[in-house]
Amino acid sequence: MHKMLYEIPYKMRSITRSCCLINNLLKYRYRDVLIRSSSWSSKPSLDQLMATPITPITPYQVLFAGNREDGSHLMKSAKFLVKELLVRFSHLIATMQNLPYIAMCHPQLKSVLESYHNSFDMLYDYETVNDYKAAVAYSKTLTKILEKYNDELKSLASGFDSAYKSVAAQDHSESLDKILKWYLGIKILAEHYVALHHPKPKYVGIICTKLELQDLIKAKADFAREICDFKYGRSPNVEFDGDVNCHFPYFPAPLEYIVFELLKNAFEATVKNHPKLSDNLPNVKIAISNTKEYFYIRISDQGGGMAKENASKAMKYHYTTSRAKNTALEQNIFNSVMEIQFGGPAGGPMSGYGFGLPVSRIYAEYLGGSLQLHTIPEYGTDVYLELQHIDGKNCFKI
Amino acid sequence: MHKMLYEIPYKMRSITRSCCLINNLLKYRYRDVLIRSSSWSSKPSLDQLMATPITPITPYQVLFAGNREDGSHLMKSAKFLVKELLVRFSHLIATMQNLPYIAMCHPQLKSVLESYHNSFDMLYDYETVNDYKAAVAYSKTLTKILEKYNDELKSLASGFDSAYKSVAAQDHSESLDKILKWYLGIKILAEHYVALHHPKPKYVGIICTKLELQDLIKAKADFAREICDFKYGRSPNVEFDGDVNCHFPYFPAPLEYIVFELLKNAFEATVKNHPKLSDNLPNVKIAISNTKEYFYIRISDQGGGMAKENASKAMKYHYTTSRAKNTALEQNIFNSVMEIQFGGPAGGPMSGYGFGLPVSRIYAEYLGGSLQLHTIPEYGTDVYLELQHIDGKNCFKI
Repeated sequence: MHKMLYEIPYKMRSITRSCCLINNLLKYRYRDVLIRSSSWSSKPSLDQLMATPITPITPYQVLFAGNREDGSHLMKSAKFLVKELLVRFSHLIATMQNLPYIAMCHPQLKSVLESYHNSFDMLYDYETVNDYKAAVAYSKTLTKILEKYNDELKSLASGFDSAYKSVAAQDHSESLDKILKWYLGIKILAEHYVALHHPKPKYVGIICTKLELQDLIKAKADFAREICDFKYGRSPNVEFDGDVNCHFPYFPAPLEYIVFELLKNAFEATVKNHPKLSDNLPNVKIAISNTKEYFYIRISDQGGGMAKENASKAMKYHYTTSRAKNTALEQNIFNSVMEIQFGGPAGGPMSGYGFGLPVSRIYAEYLGGSLQLHTIPEYGTDVYLELQHIDGKNCFKI
Repeated sequence: MHKMLYEIPYKMRSITRSCCLINNLLKYRYRDVLIRSSSWSSKPSLDQLMATPITPITPYQVLFAGNREDGSHLMKSAKFLVKELLVRFSHLIATMQNLPYIAMCHPQLKSVLESYHNSFDMLYDYETVNDYKAAVAYSKTLTKILEKYNDELKSLASGFDSAYKSVAAQDHSESLDKILKWYLGIKILAEHYVALHHPKPKYVGIICTKLELQDLIKAKADFAREICDFKYGRSPNVEFDGDVNCHFPYFPAPLEYIVFELLKNAFEATVKNHPKLSDNLPNVKIAISNTKEYFYIRISDQGGGMAKENASKAMKYHYTTSRAKNTALEQNIFNSVMEIQFGGPAGGPMSGYGFGLPVSRIYAEYLGGSLQLHTIPEYGTDVYLELQHIDGKNCFKI
């Protein structure tokens, strides 16, 4: 059915067939939406929730919604989330439903939307959470929803890539930005709640109260080196500089995703730029700075940089760039390894669709910071990651 | 008279006095222009020249207008320049005359304009250059004009700084960009012609046929270190990386100006960020890359970087930035030393007016490239200089 829907607009042009297509659509594509809008009279409909604004909260509020000895925080947080996640899922669904029809006919994008609808349905069953048992059940539902996360992101990336490559020429990066930001917000809130049910030292939910920045980067570098060694038989060393002892409260998950993405690119570029096994691989240099409101990570490689014309595209979604072969983005042969080995916190398998850098940039922006890139052709690339501290006065909101 | 003209609009507001001002203006400020426009019937007037387009030429054309054994190149070049420099001076004058009246009432800006008028007059006497004697005389006139260059630039910087600080709130960086670009073009053409009269090995005019990039940077670093040692008692080392052996034909003069400006900033920031004499100063790191069409220099310091709010201003002219004390730009106490010791090729004394970086940027852009800055607060700053090769197909024009 998916395949048929997707192909019809291109292969069959007659009016009769278009009518047939519309009938099919009404029958299959919007069926769930129609049911939802009409059948649940006692609960707010998806349409109504789409019009409800979200309640953005600061990470500080998330932190202090943390552990209470009597477990009351689990009920209190759940009461907030029960409504908030439904509202956010409805916005996520609305954003996808507003994508061009032609893009959403793509089976992968359609399946992502269906998955969002399913998650919405799963959450819809919780009217309120009044006791510990209900809180545990709610946490288990969130875990199930989160389990689909990587698959959905992969489908989203691949679907956008192929839908926009083949049929939708316009630049819809703004919609994709929105989808990713809705999803990241949902993910952080849901993961935090699940983590509250499994307390561990130095953590409140997903917030590490004393994150050692260099240690986090080192761990990701070790992992990236392992993969690089496996694939190429060698990998560059990393070298640290700056405020290497800094520590502060932070969410490790999105930071790990971004740092891993950047290191992976740096390692791969370095190895490829020194193809002779006898070559000494130049170190990947990492500088750290920590100020009151922001912290900074610069990752510099001597991986040969990018040609002028590719540098400006590297931070954009793949489908907006030219499909030329052999660009720095296309050459990413980490992908298959990544898909097997990396079930990371925020969608490692997305690599290979040219999503790594732009998604990292979106995450950095969502977290009140920025990700910038400066390349020196035939020498190397520097990326500058800036992120806002979560305990500052003017902190970003989730 | 200058002082009076400049102060009138602010201190006296009555209509009578405004009339008096207008009379004075008509009498003094535009006197020369009026004389010029009317009295030289046989020659094109300044106004006519202002409407004549310039003849942009590629550095390659400049290079090949170089040495002929019979000295014929000196007459041939002069014939081109006799008209071209008049046209370019007239455009330079027109750009200044189109600045807001209130800014041009500033005595320093007014004196710069007068100096341009004088140069124009000096060049106006050469109707053509037919023999070697005339070529030598023309070269001497150009030398005299070039001798005023540093003083004029200093007045221009200081005049803009104080005129726009006190009276003209709008951003006129576009006009200043234009003035500097006109002037740089004139300077390159004039210096090249003068240099053709004083041939030296490896040079055709001001073009070095085999410029060793690392050597040029090293020489400027040695000089900057001397000044830094003199002022602070110590200076950082420099460390090279990348394509350190590259060489190609280029104009050293503007490159020396830019590189010196960047190194000076990097050294000063490094020393100031490590105020204890016992501190080891971290090296200033210089990376070089050379590709077919462009070459690249990255200068990285650990001079503590700039605060977020200052970083975006550093590349703009000073008068457009806040006048807050203690910014990275204001702290430049190289200035007095610079004014004594550095009679460099393109206006070393400009430092201290916050002109160093923006002028370097303008020069880089004029030379078909760019100058970009990325700072990591409380760590350091990287500047990226990109310049176009002068023997490429799509080369910039002078």
